[in-house]
Amino acid sequence: MAGSPSRAAGRRLQLPLLSFLQGATAVLFAVFVRYNHKTDAAFWHRGNHSNADNEFYFCYPSFQDVHAMVFVGFGFLMVFLQHCGFSSVGFTFLLAAFALQWSTLVQGVLHCFRGGHIHVGVESMINADFCAGAVLISFGAVLGKTGPAQLLLMALLEVVLFGINKFVLLHLLGVRDAGGSMTIHTFGAYFGLVLSQVLYRPQLEKSKHRQGYHSDLFAMIGTIFLWIFWPSFNAALTSLGAGQHRAALNTYYSLAASTLGTFALSALVGEDGRLDMVHIQNAALAGGVVVGTSSEMMLTPFGALAAGFLAGTVSTLGYKFFTPILESKFKVQDTCGVHNLHGMPGVLGVLLGVLVAGLATHEAYGDGLESVFPLIAEGQRSATSQAMYQLFGLFVTLMFASVGGGLGGLLLKLPFLDSPPDSQCYEDQVHWQVPGQHEDKAQRPLREEADTQA
Amino acid sequence: MAGSPSRAAGRRLQLPLLSFLQGATAVLFAVFVRYNHKTDAAFWHRGNHSNADNEFYFCYPSFQDVHAMVFVGFGFLMVFLQHCGFSSVGFTFLLAAFALQWSTLVQGVLHCFRGGHIHVGVESMINADFCAGAVLISFGAVLGKTGPAQLLLMALLEVVLFGINKFVLLHLLGVRDAGGSMTIHTFGAYFGLVLSQVLYRPQLEKSKHRQGYHSDLFAMIGTIFLWIFWPSFNAALTSLGAGQHRAALNTYYSLAASTLGTFALSALVGEDGRLDMVHIQNAALAGGVVVGTSSEMMLTPFGALAAGFLAGTVSTLGYKFFTPILESKFKVQDTCGVHNLHGMPGVLGVLLGVLVAGLATHEAYGDGLESVFPLIAEGQRSATSQAMYQLFGLFVTLMFASVGGGLGGLLLKLPFLDSPPDSQCYEDQVHWQVPGQHEDKAQRPLREEADTQA
Amino acid sequence: MAGSPSRAAGRRLQLPLLSFLQGATAVLFAVFVRYNHKTDAAFWHRGNHSNADNEFYFCYPSFQDVHAMVFVGFGFLMVFLQHCGFSSVGFTFLLAAFALQWSTLVQGVLHCFRGGHIHVGVESMINADFCAGAVLISFGAVLGKTGPAQLLLMALLEVVLFGINKFVLLHLLGVRDAGGSMTIHTFGAYFGLVLSQVLYRPQLEKSKHRQGYHSDLFAMIGTIFLWIFWPSFNAALTSLGAGQHRAALNTYYSLAASTLGTFALSALVGEDGRLDMVHIQNAALAGGVVVGTSSEMMLTPFGALAAGFLAGTVSTLGYKFFTPILESKFKVQDTCGVHNLHGMPGVLGVLLGVLVAGLATHEAYGDGLESVFPLIAEGQRSATSQAMYQLFGLFVTLMFASVGGGLGGLLLKLPFLDSPPDSQCYEDQVHWQVPGQHEDKAQRPLREEADTQA
Repeated sequence: MAGSPSRAAGRRLQLPLLSFLQGATAVLFAVFVRYNHKTDAAFWHRGNHSNADNEFYFCYPSFQDVHAMVFVGFGFLMVFLQHCGFSSVGFTFLLAAFALQWSTLVQGVLHCFRGGHIHVGVESMINADFCAGAVLISFGAVLGKTGPAQLLLMALLEVVLFGINKFVLLHLLGVRDAGGSMTIHTFGAYFGLVLSQVLYRPQLEKSKHRQGYHSDLFAMIGTIFLWIFWPSFNAALTSLGAGQHRAALNTYYSLAASTLGTFALSALVGEDGRLDMVHIQNAALAGGVVVGTSSEMMLTPFGALAAGFLAGTVSTLGYKFFTPILESKFKVQDTCGVHNLHGMPGVLGVLLGVLVAGLATHEAYGDGLESVFPLIAEGQRSATSQAMYQLFGLFVTLMFASVGGGLGGLLLKLPFLDSPPDSQCYEDQVHWQVPGQHEDKAQRPLREEADTQA
Repeated sequence: MAGSPSRAAGRRLQLPLLSFLQGATAVLFAVFVRYNHKTDAAFWHRGNHSNADNEFYFCYPSFQDVHAMVFVGFGFLMVFLQHCGFSSVGFTFLLAAFALQWSTLVQGVLHCFRGGHIHVGVESMINADFCAGAVLISFGAVLGKTGPAQLLLMALLEVVLFGINKFVLLHLLGVRDAGGSMTIHTFGAYFGLVLSQVLYRPQLEKSKHRQGYHSDLFAMIGTIFLWIFWPSFNAALTSLGAGQHRAALNTYYSLAASTLGTFALSALVGEDGRLDMVHIQNAALAGGVVVGTSSEMMLTPFGALAAGFLAGTVSTLGYKFFTPILESKFKVQDTCGVHNLHGMPGVLGVLLGVLVAGLATHEAYGDGLESVFPLIAEGQRSATSQAMYQLFGLFVTLMFASVGGGLGGLLLKLPFLDSPPDSQCYEDQVHWQVPGQHEDKAQRPLREEADTQA
Repeated sequence: MAGSPSRAAGRRLQLPLLSFLQGATAVLFAVFVRYNHKTDAAFWHRGNHSNADNEFYFCYPSFQDVHAMVFVGFGFLMVFLQHCGFSSVGFTFLLAAFALQWSTLVQGVLHCFRGGHIHVGVESMINADFCAGAVLISFGAVLGKTGPAQLLLMALLEVVLFGINKFVLLHLLGVRDAGGSMTIHTFGAYFGLVLSQVLYRPQLEKSKHRQGYHSDLFAMIGTIFLWIFWPSFNAALTSLGAGQHRAALNTYYSLAASTLGTFALSALVGEDGRLDMVHIQNAALAGGVVVGTSSEMMLTPFGALAAGFLAGTVSTLGYKFFTPILESKFKVQDTCGVHNLHGMPGVLGVLLGVLVAGLATHEAYGDGLESVFPLIAEGQRSATSQAMYQLFGLFVTLMFASVGGGLGGLLLKLPFLDSPPDSQCYEDQVHWQVPGQHEDKAQRPLREEADTQA
């Protein structure tokens, strides 16, 4: 069975240390976190509000969709490996539940710290979930090769850098990025990829990386939930009214086109012209990533279709051709292919944002310019200069992600963090009590065949 | 392994042709599709609106529920066949992603073409998803016997006829059908059934049609998501206020009663009095179909219960007794039993609509008559005459569906469309790279047993 | 095969008797149930309302989240036993569909009976689903040991007692319990546990209770859906505006902390320090239960974190140490561990409500005191006296639950209800046609191994 007594003791002690993490977080909440004016009983009833004015009614349905994407979507999307499903869905759950608390503190201090307090409401919940999403993207790059203590340390660091990067971009540089092509996808992907490079394991057997028929169907649950709710993700933090409406509509079209692009390319490059489930599970979602920056802008429905189709094809080609190169040449073992789903489409999304911002005119946006590009509307910037700032935001993001990922990788190599040995990578049983694990090992072959389609 | 080199080459080329389909759609979007006044930045900010007035806030939560039904519900409901899960959920994804784009164009030209442009917003998204639902119903009749190129051709034709039929019914005949008993369920079912009849395969082995234990659990995911969100489906396009409220409430009761009816009948007719999962997965949903036309009307909660119970029993009896006759006598091989879930309950739903429309009075509806039956309220029609128009709508729908399905069947027989041979029907591996497919075929028996409950 | 001819005949006749139950319910609906003023076409259009005023737009999104929890969440959460998945998800479906109708009548008569009629709308739908939730909690205690006829009889009784208990608490005692720590979780858990005690089977082999790898993944679908939507559950029936906002926010934090507490404790007490999926599936949800009473109050974000963490740890310890004692000492066989997820955290939730109510001040709540503690705001009660009433509510609930559960247990022992014999407990095939059940029994071992992770 997996592991010596000392390893078991290590496992037994590391996660319980979570209690201290949770205790420290709770103390910080006690000191700093307060209900905001729309949540506090006394404040809310002071003014003369209609209940319909409470932002809860504008934002909570979007929040729920985002929440489903983070916990159902990411969790199940990663269940495509046959023996690694518990870790995929379980550690997603653990990481996101920690990251949302920690990012409430970090983003609260950076973005809405007034009078010595962080004031929370439904908008903080959406921001916290967005940050959890970035952490889960990075998790996708190291799934199966890292233990829960390592992952929590990664989240502890990544949430801080996520918050700082976002603060620099949105508050200092005046960059627009409502759906997070930059702040979430590009940041999360390259943070995870650089981290994975530092943790490179030359002896890791790729053949262990096996999918199963039912694992692939579970993963499709994740895919479909991400796909249907992505319009809400890109719209959740845009300006109310036409802004949210437009962001949802653009994302809807972009995703539809990336799905068609993915099927087309998957058949073209597949063995014997057959479709590959991994492409469908992932590349079909690239349409959501690629309009993350521009979906609130006047992208036009045609623009959304074109961008989505491009993203779907690029992502599929990435899975087929670039992932092997990434490992062989760049020493990056990218378990879920986050470079293809979040990295390249994220960068494309930034560039699309540069283009669409550069084309912004007063005619096209009318008085809505104020809500999409306030600095242009106020005459502080030209459209071209906004576009340059958008582009500069990409470099800042890549810088924070790379330095952070590198630093994270070094931290995760600390020996007491108890990284699983190569022979136990992509195996649930190193961290989980798995049904039947105490039975005769000789039964194993039966199961492996059992979950394939002969 | 499946297929000769030429078959592989065919597969490799057909889906990539999708790119042209997507390209053509994108060009049509570029020429015709524009944001509507609630989505466009300039237009929306021209008036003096409160953000709460944007229809996005009234319609988007319903849209999301409908979206989940189309992609999660239909997709997983069809995963009940043991070796056909990838095709079920994958082709649902492909077909719906295409149909929603194409129907945005078709329905846009027919229903909201002004100044040479189609103006889109959240209502177009709901209409597009509704049309995708009809296409997926037809897909249910031919699942496992058709390839993706055939299915896309079917969708190309069906979307056009769906749009025309709906235009004739709602705009020319003044028929009411908010939840689509007629325009979606009856149309989609009979289109698919006639098409399946034209594609009849006399040698098809029924024993291949095997369910698996886990496949049945995946299918229940589809069932439950359809079931919980159906109230939103029937309410999504009704008049705001009491209309949507009533449509959701009636559907809720109708579904509860159809569930009880299904369990009662399934035990009564089951082997040894045991329940049949296929009945539960499907017939329990008939309550949503049967109130599709009448849920916005003053059906009363009792009426909803009675209709739902009737639909659940009829649908269960259909699965037990009518599906075999449909194949043996009418040469219709109905893979998912759409005749029982959408066909018969759809027709029952139309008849219920005839009855409830015929009973409409000014007393019962008050000033709400204007929003449910505008033509009666304006004195252009009596209730009886409205009822006759509703009935006439059924015949128009059946006519469009039959002619369209027949035509579609002939098109799908075109030899270059590469229909799977009988021996490979209901098998994913003809179209998909399936985990383990390159292993020794001798392992196959293990897997088959493995997914059953001995 | 399972059962003699007489058993088959019993099965064949019992469920069809449902038709009479449904018939009787429908007749009661015809006599008593009417649309309320926000649902009825004539009434709604009588006043001069804006559509946005219809409570449908405030409550329906929350209703949908609750609906997903009841049908997806509870249904799949119980699919953790390898051979009992059809019963888990199927009987959840049946029970909830019956309970929501029956509780519409019972709660309607008790809470909103005016002019001889029950007036229904979206609020009744939420209340009906809440009651169905309580029934499903009790079902969790007896899953796999009871047939559908027994379960329906249980629901028939439990819904009545649920309604009476809630009426006594909310209307007679002025207790606050928006998220149902008392009325739903404590009531449902102890009703089921006492009932399970009466049905104690001394010979039941615990080894049959086997989990499977895929069953555990299906169960995680249930867990995650319960987890993400729980904020809506606790907020659904609170006062609009800041009340709902605060309830959702508190629940969000509480769940995050209970997740961390569960992982920490599960590793601490697990074999070799490995995590136990059953803990993650269940105890991570205890954070939602524990703030059921207090989430609408000024609990503070810190209070929510602390309560959630405590609940997660207590619940995990319950699964590890208390469940075996419950069986050996108290003769309670609690299939799903509802004592750990709903019982103990529910009681803790009541006590937390006592504490937070006792600390209520005019300063903390301002004019919002009226909506959270109307009796304190109106000067009829002090905060301390409200706290005492909250505590008294717990005793009333435990009394109703115990007496009801005992009575229910006696009823369920009636011989003609056809309880499954010990040898067929936790087996779907006693009630369901299971794929492959007619094949050679010798194949069984293959399947059992097949669903485990060697």
